[in-house]
Parts: sequence; structure tokens; C-alpha cells
Amino acid sequence: MAEQKKLVAEITSMDEDFTQWYTDVVVKAGLVAYSHIKGFLVYKPAGYALWEAVQNLLDARFKKTGVENVYMPLLIPENLMAKEGDLVNGFAPEVAWVTAGGSEPLQERLCVRPTSETVFSDFFRTDVQSYRDLPKVYNQWCSVVRWEKETRPFLRSREFMWQEGHTVHASEEEAKARTQQMLNVYADFCAEDLAIPVVKGRKTDKEKFAGATATYTIEALMHDGRALQSGTSHDFGTKFAEAYGIQFTDRDNKLKFAAQTSWGLSTRIIGALIMVHGDNSGLVLPPRIAPTQIMIVPIQQKKAGVLDKAYEIRDMLKDFRVKVDDTDKSPGFKFADQEMRGIPVRIEIGPRDMANGKCIIARRDNHEKTECDIASLPEKMAELLPQIQKDMYDRAAKHLEDHTYSAATKEEFVRLFTEKSGFVKAMWCGDQACEDKIKEDLGVTSRCMPFQQETISDVCVCCGKPAKKMVYWGRAY
Amino acid sequence: MAEQKKLVAEITSMDEDFTQWYTDVVVKAGLVAYSHIKGFLVYKPAGYALWEAVQNLLDARFKKTGVENVYMPLLIPENLMAKEGDLVNGFAPEVAWVTAGGSEPLQERLCVRPTSETVFSDFFRTDVQSYRDLPKVYNQWCSVVRWEKETRPFLRSREFMWQEGHTVHASEEEAKARTQQMLNVYADFCAEDLAIPVVKGRKTDKEKFAGATATYTIEALMHDGRALQSGTSHDFGTKFAEAYGIQFTDRDNKLKFAAQTSWGLSTRIIGALIMVHGDNSGLVLPPRIAPTQIMIVPIQQKKAGVLDKAYEIRDMLKDFRVKVDDTDKSPGFKFADQEMRGIPVRIEIGPRDMANGKCIIARRDNHEKTECDIASLPEKMAELLPQIQKDMYDRAAKHLEDHTYSAATKEEFVRLFTEKSGFVKAMWCGDQACEDKIKEDLGVTSRCMPFQQETISDVCVCCGKPAKKMVYWGRAY
Repeated sequence: MAEQKKLVAEITSMDEDFTQWYTDVVVKAGLVAYSHIKGFLVYKPAGYALWEAVQNLLDARFKKTGVENVYMPLLIPENLMAKEGDLVNGFAPEVAWVTAGGSEPLQERLCVRPTSETVFSDFFRTDVQSYRDLPKVYNQWCSVVRWEKETRPFLRSREFMWQEGHTVHASEEEAKARTQQMLNVYADFCAEDLAIPVVKGRKTDKEKFAGATATYTIEALMHDGRALQSGTSHDFGTKFAEAYGIQFTDRDNKLKFAAQTSWGLSTRIIGALIMVHGDNSGLVLPPRIAPTQIMIVPIQQKKAGVLDKAYEIRDMLKDFRVKVDDTDKSPGFKFADQEMRGIPVRIEIGPRDMANGKCIIARRDNHEKTECDIASLPEKMAELLPQIQKDMYDRAAKHLEDHTYSAATKEEFVRLFTEKSGFVKAMWCGDQACEDKIKEDLGVTSRCMPFQQETISDVCVCCGKPAKKMVYWGRAY
Repeated sequence: MAEQKKLVAEITSMDEDFTQWYTDVVVKAGLVAYSHIKGFLVYKPAGYALWEAVQNLLDARFKKTGVENVYMPLLIPENLMAKEGDLVNGFAPEVAWVTAGGSEPLQERLCVRPTSETVFSDFFRTDVQSYRDLPKVYNQWCSVVRWEKETRPFLRSREFMWQEGHTVHASEEEAKARTQQMLNVYADFCAEDLAIPVVKGRKTDKEKFAGATATYTIEALMHDGRALQSGTSHDFGTKFAEAYGIQFTDRDNKLKFAAQTSWGLSTRIIGALIMVHGDNSGLVLPPRIAPTQIMIVPIQQKKAGVLDKAYEIRDMLKDFRVKVDDTDKSPGFKFADQEMRGIPVRIEIGPRDMANGKCIIARRDNHEKTECDIASLPEKMAELLPQIQKDMYDRAAKHLEDHTYSAATKEEFVRLFTEKSGFVKAMWCGDQACEDKIKEDLGVTSRCMPFQQETISDVCVCCGKPAKKMVYWGRAY
């Protein structure tokens, strides 16, 4: 127990200092290490395995909707980047520039991709000729670079991994439908695989993606009541097509500009996993995304038959992602280490239990311990893992509900953001000036105009003019 | 048939101009498109699907040997790159340099990774403390940049995708064993999944990787008789550990330098797939790697029931990767297009066959067409696909055997490289001067010193001094 205490004691309590708790978990759970360059992370096996799990689950969902994976160049010529004015203005301050190849200076600077609308559009310009070539529903898994000033593991990095989907369509209606389809894919993925409930909606013009006609978003609420934008889907209409010359001959034999979308979800989502489910013992992983779902810990493992029994149980559970911790560490250390890493279920097996054909099952999410017949472990696990997944979702959904408030008046709005942390639903007139003022006064931004609109009052919570939209407001990562 | 001819006519015959044939296949099979930057490719869906298949199959083989995936930063500080002298000298002429982040010039140049020994070593320096931390068997899937002068799709690009494995061990013996284990993984992957036989051996000092104490290689023979280095595995001994300070406390409580390896296989392997198996109708894919194994082509698809029957057959064959080509192109066009793309098996189904419960099966590899009962298609395919895989391997193995020659004398060596194309086995004294002379005179390089040594003669084929090793020589991509 001394060892266990020591290990656990190294994490700051989340109630004491949430920011430090987060950093502690990220490092102590072995997810990442820092490199010599600010904002460039080393993904260690436990961290990369989470990203691999995200990739596998999300990619399967993509492919069901007809997505094809491709890969575009890492570097983008400056003049290509500059063709769509809003995009280049949005990204120019934060791109990394390659100016030499080998010992030769380059004739034209190349930027390391911060996002790939430009190269996809340039490719579509020649690849799309006729309505018969449409739609193209492409995606790439890659890393991108944005020279951020402030960085935090997963949440804001100079290099981060993501997927970026890019599609071309014959009509704006079809493009719009695709953006919403992909937003739903993200929301379902978060809810079903990550046990994270999200609010779906549209970004205001101030908060939308540079170059988009509309940006849709899923917003999640972290344990500390701050919001995290967890995935976005952009409708470009024909804006990029006009800038890059993507035209096709339609069925009516007329030359038309194509409509486009893009949508992305990044390693940020790992930050959401940590901050939605984690506790003071470390990470808590939902079973569906957990690289290891069950860890078997032999007790008094040097006693005859204990390790063999542990391996036998592992082999009984081969339908799950299961491992035996047969290192020479103490059980107490193993317990604490596996809790830190968020493994959903621990099975303890020692000489006494073995003699009775029993073992102990410990749930990571609620720390519940129960005894179980070894023989019935496979059925028990087939029930327990989905139950944990559901309980984790329900807990997160309750947290979201409990921390979503409504404000009809400015006083109420200010009071809520002073006394509480979470989302506040309030009406908005549609003017950016009110968003700017709210941000300046309270450090709060409009997270989204939810698809499910409600009427909290008739007037803007900021200026008192007639309201146009109900908005989720929050302090965001 | 006019359409089919037209499509096929667009490929140059491989006997006429192999280089042009290769470029034609790469483009017409829809694998890649060129971007605005020389040597940076767009991987289209068919090209990326091949790389995804390589990743899935190879990654599964890696994980069976205990490999864990990680991810290291894309950019490397110049001073970190420079710590190991041989490596930096080997790569300095061909790296791309980032000199500005956003609008600010950087204080230190960062290179886009050409390979990641330096960042892995720097990470291991702090991550490895004790023999209990060893071995670490890590791998990353990523893209790298090398500013090559001459570029060709897949074979030599400025950006290419690969995996790079990096391991640390407590002893040099264990590191050496890991390099050979991974070389065998590559060779088995090539033979079993890609139907490509390879020669395994060790590189000469002239041809080894910058910074390695030994480089092992697998060498494949292309259809035109040229060699392609298809995967390499490097033993570093303690060289990088000494340069980067990777030390650990061993069981005997002494501080020791760790031993390291690295091993890589890249998108080059797609070039090998094309040039080993392709023919004058285009790409020919072995079934195990083919993203689509079976394509069903409905004949007279507008007639009642034809398309439904095609979908019914697809559903019967759901254990395979199967699709129906239900586009409005003509059957002739579809046949030619699918041959170009190398799909292993085509099933033709039309009204006449349907009435008899029959269909036509066409093999891509040998153009054989047979009739088959629709009801027995699942069993037929379960036999046929492995048969095609085997036949393709056997054909490639025969080609390798038929184009591997032996030269006991210099005259014979020169005659073979003048009249024939392929590997020539010949003895070597061990001096780089002879390698240099052979390269200068004949454009031929030492491909490897094969593990299976033979004695062709007692003296070096170049200088006549006593021979030390039998070497495979060849003209290489």
C-alpha cells in the first residue's frame, strides 16, 4: 500500500488544481512525453494506442458512409495557399515555412500543411470534369502544423494528428447534407464509442472556419465545466470551387461550380476523454475505446499455480482485449498503475480465491469490487463491459445536464458565469458586437447555435434587442 | 470493344519502354496524381488503399513480435540532428528546413524528419533507466521528406510514407537478433502477402545506412531485371546510444550503453508490386493485398433481374472483398478498366448465364476464363484466390531464378551485364575500390552479401585478389 499511495500521491487532486491534474494524468498515465520543440509531442504506446483506437472506430464509421481514404502532400506552395483569401488570412499567422531543400534555398516558400482545403481543391480542379465524377468523398489521416503561441498536450499543439475529410458535390444541397451527416457521425462516435454526450449546432460567423459558409460543431463539457469543441464540419458552398476553378459539366450540359465540404476530428478528442471521465486516480477509459479492457493481476504470483491460473483466465477471455500483469511489481503498485492508466476492469486472482474457483472483479469507473465464479467470467464480462460503457455515458450526460443553465437576463447570465461553470443557454441578437462584448467582459464565447432551439426570452441577453437565436455560451479550451 | 481497345491502347507496352509502361500504369490505374511540388504525390483512393492494405498486414505481423506503435515529432532541431556525425553527414544534403513559424523567424532551424533515429534516441535517453525498462520495441507509421534530385512515383519521392521501427536492447546480441527477426518479417510479408520472392542478405559498408554498424536488406527483382531494395533493417550496436547518452543500470548494477536497431519499409513496395506482377493490360494484384478481390460485372444490366442477380452474388461472397460494377459504362470498358486496376477475379453475369444458373469467372493473372455454377461460387472463390496467390508467387520465383546468373570471371561478369538483365552472383574481395570500379564501368552495384553464401570461385571478380564474400550484383532502382 505504501507504493500505491506514493504513486497516487503524485497526481494533484482535480478539485484543487484541474489544470495540474490534467498535466499529471497525461504524463503519469504514460500517454505522451514532451520533445525539444514546444508543442510537438512524443506519443508513447499508451497515448498512440488511444489514437489508433479512435482511428479504427471512426474510420469504420466513415467507410459505411462511402468515404475513401487518400493522402495529399505535406507541403503546400505559398501561391496555392493564397488563392482563397479568407483561408490564407486565417492561417498565415500560424504556419511553418520550409525555405530550403538540402543545401539549396527554394524559389518559392512551402508551408507545412495547417489544413488541406487548398491542395484538395487544386486536385479536384483537374480530377472533376463531369457530374459522373461526383460526388467525391475523400478523407485523409495525417498530422498538421499550426504555430500556436500557447500549447497544452492534446488540447492545443503545434503538431497534431487528425483526419480531414474533403468532399465535392454537384449541388449545394448535397454538400450541406454531407456536412450534417458527418457531424452526426462524430456525435454518434462520441456518444457510443467514447461515452461522451455532445451538443450539436452551428457556429456563429465569428467562430466559423476561415473560408466556410457555415461551420457545424459538436461541443462537449469537461469535468471542470469548460467546453471543448470536439469536431467540426464545414460547408463551403461553391466558395473554394470559385477560387480554385473546380467546374463540372452537369446533366443539363452546363458548366457549373462544384460545392464542397470539409470535416475534422483530432487528437484533441483524447483531451476530452481525459477531462470528461478522469478522476483523482487518473484516466478512466470507456471499454469500447480502451486498448486493454481487462487486466488480470495475480496475487502472490510466486505461489504454485497462480500465474498459470491467470493465463488460463486470459485465454478464457480471448473475445476481449485482455492482459496479465505478470511483472515483478507488487499488487498494490499494479492496482495503482492500472487505475492511473484507466483500464476498465481488473481481475484479481490469488491462491485463496483459486481454491474456491473464485476471483475478484474491480471496476475502474466506480471502484466497485465484486466476487465472481471463474467459470462464469466470459458471460460476466460480456455483460459488465457494456454496462460500464453505459454507466459512464449516463454519468457524463447527467454532468452535462446538471451544468447546463439558462439565463433570460443579463444579470442572470453574469451571475451564472460568476458562480457556476458550464454551458449557459441564452438568446442572441445575431450581432458580433454582442459576442465581442461578452467575451471581453466574461471570457465567454458562443459555443454554438444548437439545432434544438428553445426560446429563453425574446431579447438578446447582451444588448436587449430582439433575439434571433438561442446560443450555448461557455468558457472553452 | 472499341472503348476497351482505346483504354488499353493508352498504355505503352512494357517490352517497348518499361519506364513509360510503369508511369502509364501508375497514372491509368488511378494510383496517384502529381502535385505542384516535384516528388510530392497525391495518393488517390486506389493507391492509398494499397498502402492501407500494406499497413494492416504488416502491422499485424509486427504486433505478433511485440512491437508497440508510437509517434514522434515531425520536426527535428538542427542540433539534435547533428549529434551522430555519420547520420547527419548522410542526410544533410537532402533535408527540408523550416526556418519560420508564423511571421517569426525561428532561432534554430528545424528539419522535416528524413528518418527519426535522432528523436527516438533522444527520447530513449530519458525513457530508459534500468534493464527493467528494456527492451523497447517501437514503431511509427508516418511520412518523411528527403530532397531527392530525381523522382519517380513510389520509387523515389521527396515525401514518402513508411514505417520506421526503433528498438533499444540491453545487449548487442539481442539487438542483432531483432534486426534479423524484422528482416524475416519483411521477407515473409513480401513472399506470403505480396507474392514477391526476395533475396535476404547484408549490405556492404559502402551501401549500408549512415550510422549503422550493419544493414540487412531484402532485394527483389523487377520484371525488367532491375533490383529493388524493398526493406532494410539496421543494427546500430551502441553507436547512437553513445552519441545520445542512452545508458541503463544493468542487473549487475553497472551503467551500460544500450544497443539499438531500426528497420523500415516504405511506399516503394507499391512500386515493387507493380513491376513484379504487372503486364501490358496494367496492374496485377495478388489477392491477399488487393483492396477489391472480386469484381462482378453485369452484362446487359438493364435487362430485368440482371443487377439483382449481381447483388445476390455479391451477398453470397461476403467473406471476400467483393464489389459490383453497376456504373453505366459498357462491359468492354469495365473489363479493361478492372484489368488496368489489377482486380484478381472478375465474375461476368448476364441473362443467358443466369437462366442456366451459371456465370463466367475471369482470372486477371493469366487471363483464363471458366464457367462456374453460381451456387458453388463461394467454394470456388475460397479455392481460386489462394491458387492465384500461389501461381503469382511461383511465376515471380521462376522469373527470379531464371534471371539470376553466376560469373566466375570478369569477362563473364561483363558479358552477363551487357547481354542479360538480372542478378549476377560473383565473388568479392571486400574492398570498396572494386565496388566503385564495377559501378563506374557497368552501372552495377552490390545489392547484398546473401545469408546463403556459395563459392563461385576463389578470387574477386573485379581485382583477382582472394575473395571474401559472394555478392548479388545488379542494376537497381
